[in-house]
Amino acid sequence: MAPLRLGMVGGGPGAFIGPVHRMAAAMDGHFQLVAGAFASDPERSIAAGRALGLQAARCYPDYAAMAAAESARPDGIEAVSIVTTNRTHHDIAMTFLNAGIDVICEKPVTATLAEAVSLREAVARSGCVFVVTHNYAGYPMVREARARVAANTLGRLRMVQVEYPQGWLSDRIELRGGNKQASWRTDPAEAGAGGALGDIGTHAFHLACFVTGQTPQAVLADLAALAQGRVLDDNASVLLRYPNGARGAIWASQIAIGCANGLRLRVFGEYGALDWSQESPNELWVDQRDAPRQRIVPGGPGVGAEAARVTRLPAGHPEGFLEAFAAIYTDAAQLIRARRTGAAAAGAMPPSVQDGLLAMAFVDACVRSSHAGNVWVTLAE
Amino acid sequence: MAPLRLGMVGGGPGAFIGPVHRMAAAMDGHFQLVAGAFASDPERSIAAGRALGLQAARCYPDYAAMAAAESARPDGIEAVSIVTTNRTHHDIAMTFLNAGIDVICEKPVTATLAEAVSLREAVARSGCVFVVTHNYAGYPMVREARARVAANTLGRLRMVQVEYPQGWLSDRIELRGGNKQASWRTDPAEAGAGGALGDIGTHAFHLACFVTGQTPQAVLADLAALAQGRVLDDNASVLLRYPNGARGAIWASQIAIGCANGLRLRVFGEYGALDWSQESPNELWVDQRDAPRQRIVPGGPGVGAEAARVTRLPAGHPEGFLEAFAAIYTDAAQLIRARRTGAAAAGAMPPSVQDGLLAMAFVDACVRSSHAGNVWVTLAE
Amino acid sequence: MAPLRLGMVGGGPGAFIGPVHRMAAAMDGHFQLVAGAFASDPERSIAAGRALGLQAARCYPDYAAMAAAESARPDGIEAVSIVTTNRTHHDIAMTFLNAGIDVICEKPVTATLAEAVSLREAVARSGCVFVVTHNYAGYPMVREARARVAANTLGRLRMVQVEYPQGWLSDRIELRGGNKQASWRTDPAEAGAGGALGDIGTHAFHLACFVTGQTPQAVLADLAALAQGRVLDDNASVLLRYPNGARGAIWASQIAIGCANGLRLRVFGEYGALDWSQESPNELWVDQRDAPRQRIVPGGPGVGAEAARVTRLPAGHPEGFLEAFAAIYTDAAQLIRARRTGAAAAGAMPPSVQDGLLAMAFVDACVRSSHAGNVWVTLAE
Amino acid sequence: MAPLRLGMVGGGPGAFIGPVHRMAAAMDGHFQLVAGAFASDPERSIAAGRALGLQAARCYPDYAAMAAAESARPDGIEAVSIVTTNRTHHDIAMTFLNAGIDVICEKPVTATLAEAVSLREAVARSGCVFVVTHNYAGYPMVREARARVAANTLGRLRMVQVEYPQGWLSDRIELRGGNKQASWRTDPAEAGAGGALGDIGTHAFHLACFVTGQTPQAVLADLAALAQGRVLDDNASVLLRYPNGARGAIWASQIAIGCANGLRLRVFGEYGALDWSQESPNELWVDQRDAPRQRIVPGGPGVGAEAARVTRLPAGHPEGFLEAFAAIYTDAAQLIRARRTGAAAAGAMPPSVQDGLLAMAFVDACVRSSHAGNVWVTLAE
Repeated sequence: MAPLRLGMVGGGPGAFIGPVHRMAAAMDGHFQLVAGAFASDPERSIAAGRALGLQAARCYPDYAAMAAAESARPDGIEAVSIVTTNRTHHDIAMTFLNAGIDVICEKPVTATLAEAVSLREAVARSGCVFVVTHNYAGYPMVREARARVAANTLGRLRMVQVEYPQGWLSDRIELRGGNKQASWRTDPAEAGAGGALGDIGTHAFHLACFVTGQTPQAVLADLAALAQGRVLDDNASVLLRYPNGARGAIWASQIAIGCANGLRLRVFGEYGALDWSQESPNELWVDQRDAPRQRIVPGGPGVGAEAARVTRLPAGHPEGFLEAFAAIYTDAAQLIRARRTGAAAAGAMPPSVQDGLLAMAFVDACVRSSHAGNVWVTLAE
Repeated sequence: MAPLRLGMVGGGPGAFIGPVHRMAAAMDGHFQLVAGAFASDPERSIAAGRALGLQAARCYPDYAAMAAAESARPDGIEAVSIVTTNRTHHDIAMTFLNAGIDVICEKPVTATLAEAVSLREAVARSGCVFVVTHNYAGYPMVREARARVAANTLGRLRMVQVEYPQGWLSDRIELRGGNKQASWRTDPAEAGAGGALGDIGTHAFHLACFVTGQTPQAVLADLAALAQGRVLDDNASVLLRYPNGARGAIWASQIAIGCANGLRLRVFGEYGALDWSQESPNELWVDQRDAPRQRIVPGGPGVGAEAARVTRLPAGHPEGFLEAFAAIYTDAAQLIRARRTGAAAAGAMPPSVQDGLLAMAFVDACVRSSHAGNVWVTLAE
Repeated sequence: MAPLRLGMVGGGPGAFIGPVHRMAAAMDGHFQLVAGAFASDPERSIAAGRALGLQAARCYPDYAAMAAAESARPDGIEAVSIVTTNRTHHDIAMTFLNAGIDVICEKPVTATLAEAVSLREAVARSGCVFVVTHNYAGYPMVREARARVAANTLGRLRMVQVEYPQGWLSDRIELRGGNKQASWRTDPAEAGAGGALGDIGTHAFHLACFVTGQTPQAVLADLAALAQGRVLDDNASVLLRYPNGARGAIWASQIAIGCANGLRLRVFGEYGALDWSQESPNELWVDQRDAPRQRIVPGGPGVGAEAARVTRLPAGHPEGFLEAFAAIYTDAAQLIRARRTGAAAAGAMPPSVQDGLLAMAFVDACVRSSHAGNVWVTLAE
Repeated sequence: MAPLRLGMVGGGPGAFIGPVHRMAAAMDGHFQLVAGAFASDPERSIAAGRALGLQAARCYPDYAAMAAAESARPDGIEAVSIVTTNRTHHDIAMTFLNAGIDVICEKPVTATLAEAVSLREAVARSGCVFVVTHNYAGYPMVREARARVAANTLGRLRMVQVEYPQGWLSDRIELRGGNKQASWRTDPAEAGAGGALGDIGTHAFHLACFVTGQTPQAVLADLAALAQGRVLDDNASVLLRYPNGARGAIWASQIAIGCANGLRLRVFGEYGALDWSQESPNELWVDQRDAPRQRIVPGGPGVGAEAARVTRLPAGHPEGFLEAFAAIYTDAAQLIRARRTGAAAAGAMPPSVQDGLLAMAFVDACVRSSHAGNVWVTLAE
């Protein structure tokens, strides 16, 4: 099966997530990068494309030029990856959707909830595939966790505990210059209303929704900028309430010294529980009331089809962040091919524009809650 | 040095914490149990004392008789351990304080904040030693953590994250009978206003205070009874705010299937952090910004005098719950001897009546917060 | 039940294991220390006893005086703990056995195999209880492991892998003076023919025998003194062969920098396996072919009576080295009482003189193997 | 930079390692697969190539045809990956070397030591690049370990402890048919003289050599087939001796139930030590005498250039088996380009034909040692 032709917007020199998308897109052979507009500066944009080995004609000065030219080519791109800063996602995505090109978009899906609503409408109108890279949903053991919840092995949901501590913004490195990642993430004009909340809190929220299959109805958030002088939150403590009365909590922090990328999810039900940590992604701890704790691993005994579908190697051969990210791309490829050929896309479950929108509704509700003095706010949408 | 003569109230057949106190009191040779009133039923009380090998004359039908008789003996008890249910602590303690006998009291110190205030006054009036067994403060690595915070190795406090998940009340075992521990802890008449909050949330709160040396000024609590039909909370999520603007969170749960006694404390400062877990008590994880994570162990390199003082064995020889509990008794012995002989009690830092009272103020504020719809409530006292 | 009257030989100032025995003997209330000869120097011996609060009349200048006097008293000691250096164990034990006093003896049981044989005969002759403190057999999860092997949950034994790395002798601290533990352990005149082998290799060997219920028939050992200039081995690699063809390996080292007391046992059978580590003693990892790994904990689901018998606290309340040591004393107390009163001693399984002798046969065979150029040597006895 | 043109021999349907090579070769963009002979059956060989999307003309019926045709094309392959069973490596590699094509060869490099010697000569004669995929050398923390040893942070080498337990051959699954991996690995005709020894023992040996920079001079091996009726060893215990007197041990097993791919290396020197485990590849435990244990992670503080060179993601974003494998390919690409263009290949350190040969000398010596009754045998070459 020939790979899908992929374009990219953003991801030029100094980017972190652009190269990740390129490696993830390539890993399972479903995509080939053939075009791109990699930087806001036209010259740097084209130079970056050439450095990646693309044909000169398909290295574009900007995304609008790329959308126009590629949609006119018979061999134009079939999908585009958008890996720019949050505030630009909406307009770029609209442009490609209008050109009928399927979209894979970095999270958070937009900078505001209103933009996400607008995007959702555009996706529906266009009939295009739209995938948001809430990439942690691509880990085999996350898929396993979801399958176990869906099979009711935990019973009625009672408590969801999510944490996502990082430490890299414990110092105000954004003031020292030279760190592009730190600069835009701490700048409301680029990042939107959420700091740590938007950057990693959205991942935590999505992971909880993905695994439990349930969306909290209300949040109570305490957002704080604990590094002196920072504008956006670098620490967010959020209480959750679910429609069935279950409780939850999300802690997302970027001032947690010693923590690198410590996303962890624990789900407690009436008679079972699950525990998964991103930094040890190849194990899922499973508890049933009155039974010994079990360690479930990819390729090992007791693992179901959902995990096996995104597992490449036998047990004991660690797969990591890129592999999980690639699973989202593989899911996306299945949906894209299904749209074009009517092929089945069984098992594909990449985060959708609605998932991205819910994460923005979460950010929006948390910001409102925190500004109002830490009160309960119902999630819009 | 001859051991101190100890009496005990409570801790008869079926008790969990009574035997713990007896083993802890004996471990370092500072106390000898010589008298007791071990049950509310006079006959069972006396029988229990005989089964423990006490002299018949010092096996009492009730605590009042014991206080009267022992304070009249020239070789009467020098201290009493109170290990009954929460609601009885206040009156028993008052009786012994009035008799001039030093008190070691189980936590929570009382069933209500008002009782704790009353007790604090009585302690001051009496001049007696009063120790509350918030026993987790006795672990060497907890002492080490406290010392490191006190030495300012973390910088200004920013975030305190405490969790205390247990799973043993995930089912309503209190309905099945035969489980004394479950029955009284889920009964407001015996336990007071807090369920998981009072039973283990108070430990979590005290641990955070003990290590950071700071007391939160306000809490926002969401107390829930997640096992259907239960009256008292079995899951508590609490946000904390410190006078300096630092944030905190405590999660205490007794419906967390798969968790046994998972108390964990993480403290994040401006340039350092600490991480300690009760189920792996003999390691403390230490982070300084831009330095590799270090694992500190009792008896190992980098450990200070505070930890060494409560360490009995060389590195690699695990000490556990009883040893930590015994450290509180050893601290208590030092204070008791100091009161009697003027001996120094350097390094002793057992939880005081004020510490116990603060934990009750925490419970009181959390209950008020939760009842008022999860609003911020300032800690009394 | 009144505690048994206990005497002690050795364990004076500067000792490590003496205080351990005293705490372990006291923990479960089965023994009360009433007499002792604590040092080779008569004056220091008596002073040490007084410092421990013993009656002056029962603080002896030497062990012979103690054996004579105590066996003549109506309230004389019922058992003696021998905690001196290896080379003195034999003569001291003989003295007390001849006096009809039950013996609890530190490991290795003697300095030579011949002495162990002599002792075995004396024990048989005397009818006394003789317990060797291969203390790691006292951990609940070690008992659980033994029970699971005995119940054939692993199938036919195939491979036993034991390691016991320590790092405290990586430097030649014995040359610097002031470290009594290091001095005698590295001195063949005090320690016998084995260094690390005798000190900790014997523990490793006993643990493997205790859990598997099988004794290797032959060993091939490579003993090395890796710290330059040391006489006795500080690193021992030993291959084992079992009667049924199963293989094994023991690695014991005292130059393993970074390791504190890293005893670990893994047992592999035809369809099951077990993994236990002394520094995380409260978990046992259990594998059955084609089943997820299980974590078994004291007090948790799936634990049998053998472990429960030596567990004092609920799950999640760590018990440690002293508690495991105390279990050996409790076992000893049951045997001692059974000898005196005919009471049952169900479940007691303290290491016997034969177990101690086998450990010496292991040392003996390893030393011969290593001297002969690392050849297979059959275990005597 | 255009990717190098790559061919592949082996790796058709049912293969495990073929797809791994393809993903690894593609990951960093240095290779593009353009030709192949994927199976011993000509029709299946060609069909497999087509299924991978290769041009029909470059899907070959056998490797000889491929070598002939590709070396004649101006755009012929620049390198070939050999991923067939052990016994065929030698002849295939000779064919491509003779055609002047650079070779990347699965381990063990050959089925016999003599073949490895022959291959070493051919490589020297040809001037070609020859890389053996002892892939564990590609992990960042393995590179870090090597760099730390090379920088003498451990002092004089004392002890090397390697283990590599797997459990997948605990049952004789080779008898049940349908498991190609199990069948050929347990068949001396395909695998050579070593079973677990050749399959994973060679990895363990190479890892030890790679990290320590030293080669053992002699081995004493106990090879056993512990699953009844098996011919080749499934459990190997090997003692090592180094030229400087240091000791070592390797344990490789495929009957270790519960173990998946448990390669672990511990290195102990005079004043430092290292500990790394393949299943938790993103942490390296570092000990210096009298200093707390440190946890070193890719992208974290204290990591050197050697690890950074093969790290793609920030700290906390797990990289795994494929990424480490890809690092070997990236190293190979640098050497291949350097040979063609004279470009520098700074930092590239892929396992060479000599490294592969040493692993075969290890197998050869172990087999001789074990057959001779477990005696010391000096490594040839």
